[in-house]
This record gives sequence, structure tokens and C-alpha cells, in this order.
Amino acid sequence: MKKIPVLEVFGPTIQGEGMVAGQKTMFVRTAGCDYRCSWCDSAFTWDGSQKPRMLTAEDVAEELDELAPNNYGHITISGGNPALHAGIGGLVALMAERGVGTAVETQGSVWQDWMLEVDEVTVSPKPPSSNMTTDWEQLDHYMNALGARETKRHSLKVVIFNETDLAYAKTVHFRYPNVPFYLQVGNDDLSTADDLKLRDRLLASYEWLVEQAASDPDWNQARVLPQIHALLWGNKQGV
Amino acid sequence: MKKIPVLEVFGPTIQGEGMVAGQKTMFVRTAGCDYRCSWCDSAFTWDGSQKPRMLTAEDVAEELDELAPNNYGHITISGGNPALHAGIGGLVALMAERGVGTAVETQGSVWQDWMLEVDEVTVSPKPPSSNMTTDWEQLDHYMNALGARETKRHSLKVVIFNETDLAYAKTVHFRYPNVPFYLQVGNDDLSTADDLKLRDRLLASYEWLVEQAASDPDWNQARVLPQIHALLWGNKQGV
Ligand code: SF4
Ligand code: SF4
Repeated sequence: MKKIPVLEVFGPTIQGEGMVAGQKTMFVRTAGCDYRCSWCDSAFTWDGSQKPRMLTAEDVAEELDELAPNNYGHITISGGNPALHAGIGGLVALMAERGVGTAVETQGSVWQDWMLEVDEVTVSPKPPSSNMTTDWEQLDHYMNALGARETKRHSLKVVIFNETDLAYAKTVHFRYPNVPFYLQVGNDDLSTADDLKLRDRLLASYEWLVEQAASDPDWNQARVLPQIHALLWGNKQGV
Repeated sequence: MKKIPVLEVFGPTIQGEGMVAGQKTMFVRTAGCDYRCSWCDSAFTWDGSQKPRMLTAEDVAEELDELAPNNYGHITISGGNPALHAGIGGLVALMAERGVGTAVETQGSVWQDWMLEVDEVTVSPKPPSSNMTTDWEQLDHYMNALGARETKRHSLKVVIFNETDLAYAKTVHFRYPNVPFYLQVGNDDLSTADDLKLRDRLLASYEWLVEQAASDPDWNQARVLPQIHALLWGNKQGV
């Protein structure tokens, strides 16, 4: 069985973002990313500062059970880019067997067939402020494959730091008009430990983003959300 | 055509709560409620302090178009209890014709057949702290009727002020285990104009609620959300 490079397993807590915002969940964070976003809020998954452990799906399940015995019904697999790891397929299947819901977030740059079995897939292409470049053909492949599913759900989410990012987000939204679309406030101060200051700053950015969406008909179908966990816990890791 | 007692029409803004949190939307707020919740955050809809205008569905559509020409694709009908008004059926039909999505929120005490045509119905039974009593048979009727729909969605949401409310919410969740369930933080300071103080208070309550959900297996499937608009705009009306 293929192993998964795991950086952290934590919870139960709530999902702070996107299509399942508020959901009680456990987090499994994998190491490694094919991107290097300028504002990556989990750079520790790829900058060498933290070492992953190589775990099987069963190892991960055991850890989840130890952390939260009978106390979870949903897990979120995040990264880094979890789509780098074939081994996650085993974890998704194991959770499905147990009736535990699964969510994953990826930028949509690398495909894995296990993606089809995930209950909620958030595809989050990165806007210009990240300094990354979108592979549109690969993104088309993602949207086609996910769109062919019948009972499971997916969405697009773009993190916004400025107006150029918003224009990019619009290109994404218009390319896949039938996919639920989320605009999310970017966190531009990843180092502060002053949670209250960060909270005010994030809410001010969120208000700006709401105003942009409210004043532009192109966003009539969009949903605009803050990172709820950052409002609560600031930049802390593992909550 | 039956008229609708309308207290305010505003937007575009975002939906701050529940199953479509973050959605860009217009609000149509109707007057009148069959309840008198102790902590009602829209008591002005029924305490006689503000006078409704009697409008047809076309009048309301015209007002929406004036406020936001081509700049909305979703409306939220709230109250008070919108389910008191048969005339809302015309508004829901008119919006559907135009391809505009509709959401409604009600405590589930009064049924209207137009409820079946609403894209997203939030049923929000009131916990003990409201001093109201739930009519479970009527709530069963709601859940059966809404559950029989195929493409439109519904959810349950309970506002929580204390542990007794949480126990009540659990009764609701377990009675309708397959209905998406939201726990929402109650706002216990409806009069303050100090938005920053309110923000901190609401986030502290939200953190408490997250902890309750995280530590109790009965909430494994629940979603826990704050009132995002209250974090942004405090107790202001019409945003
Ligand atoms: S894709 Fe995500 S994990 Fe990878 S560098 Fe960008 S923000 Fe970080
Ligand atoms: S049901 Fe809603 S509008 Fe009616 S009194 Fe209670 S909180 Fe207020």
C-alpha cells in the first residue's frame, strides 16, 4: 500500500473555508507542493522546515481514532497539494467504508483518480498575486471529470488579494459558470501573533471584497467568505 | 394578486448565515411574526415600531430592479415569518421565471405551498431561550414536504445561547438526521453600537460553540457558523 507523507493530523475542529465552511471535521495535512505561492499560508508543508512522516491509510485512520475516538464523521485532506499523493486513495476509500465524509482542497494542477471518490472537492486555482501560472487545460480536465459525478459535490474557490486577482477569478468563474464559485479573502499578514489586529484587518479586507462583489453583476452568483478559523485563531497552526 | 407586507428591501449584500452563507443576495424583509422570541433580532418586524408597505410581487420586483439594475441573481426573503404571507408565492414564481435564485427562512410554524418552489429553505426552530414552544407535528410536516423535493435544498438551523438550547438543537438534529444541520451563535447584545466590542463577544461565543460541537460525537455531522454580517456590520439594520 502506497504511503502518504503526513505533516499533521489534528481536530476535531471546524472547516473554516469554502463549500463546507463550519463543518465539524478532522484535518490531515500532507507535505509537498508543486507550487510556491508568494503568500502560501502553509509554506511549512514544502519549505523543508517540518518533516513529514510516511504513513499508510490505516496509520492515518488509527491516528484519527486516537485523537477523536468516535468523535468525527468528516475529514479534510489538505496540504500542500494532496493531489501529489496516490496513497490518499486508500484513505478516502477507508473513510467511505466507515461512513466518514471526505473533503479535499487542491489547486487543480495534478489529477488523481481518487479525486472522484471524495465527497467535497474544492479546486482553488491561484491568482496572479501568487506568482503562479494556471494550466487551463489541466483545470478543464478537473472540471470535466468532477462535473460528471452525480452525488458528490465540487466547487471553485479563488483567494483574492487585489483587483488583478479579482479579474483572474472572473475568468475562472466564467470558464466554468455552472460550478459553485467562492471568493475568499487572502491573509496578507502571515507572521503576526496579534490575533485581534489580524481579525480587524481580515474583516476590513472581507468588507472590501463584499463591496466588490456587490457592485459587479458578474458576481451575481458568487459566494464571498472570510477564513473563519483565522478570525478565531489567527495564524496558529494545528487548530 | 395577494399583496405582501414589506418592511425593507435592500442589497446587494451577502447572506450572513446558514446554508448559503456568503451568497451575493438581495433581501426582502416581510412584516409580522406569529412568534415573540425573547432575543428576536428583527423585533421591528412585529413590535409596531415600523410600518410595512403592502406590495404586489411586481412592486417588489420593480424595487429590486431599481436598487440593483441587473445586479442581482439571488434574493432572500426573511422576516418576521415570511410563511405568514400567501402573496410571497407570486414573488417566488416571478423570480424563478427570471432565473433568479430564492432563499427563505422561517421557524417552520406555518406552512405555505410556495415553500416547495424556493431554492433554499432554512427552517429554524426556536430553542428554549426564545421562550417559544415548538409544534413538532408541524415541523414534521415541513421536513416531509421539503424532503420530497428533488433538486431544491433545505436545511435546519438552530440559534444557540446556552447549553439548554444545545440540548434542544440535538433533539431537532436527531429527529431529522438526514437534513443538513447548522448551529448558529446567538447575538445576546442587540442594542450595542460598539461594533468592535460586539465582534469580540460574538467570536468568543462562536469559539465556545465550536468547542461544544468539537467535544460531542452527536455533532459529528453538524456545521457551526457565526453570523458573518454581525461580525462586519454589528447591529445595523439594512446591510
Ligand atoms: S498551492 Fe497551496 S500549498 Fe501550494 S504553495 Fe500555493 S498556497 Fe501553498
Ligand atoms: S421567529 Fe424570528 S422573527 Fe419571529 S420573533 Fe422569533 S426571531 Fe423574531
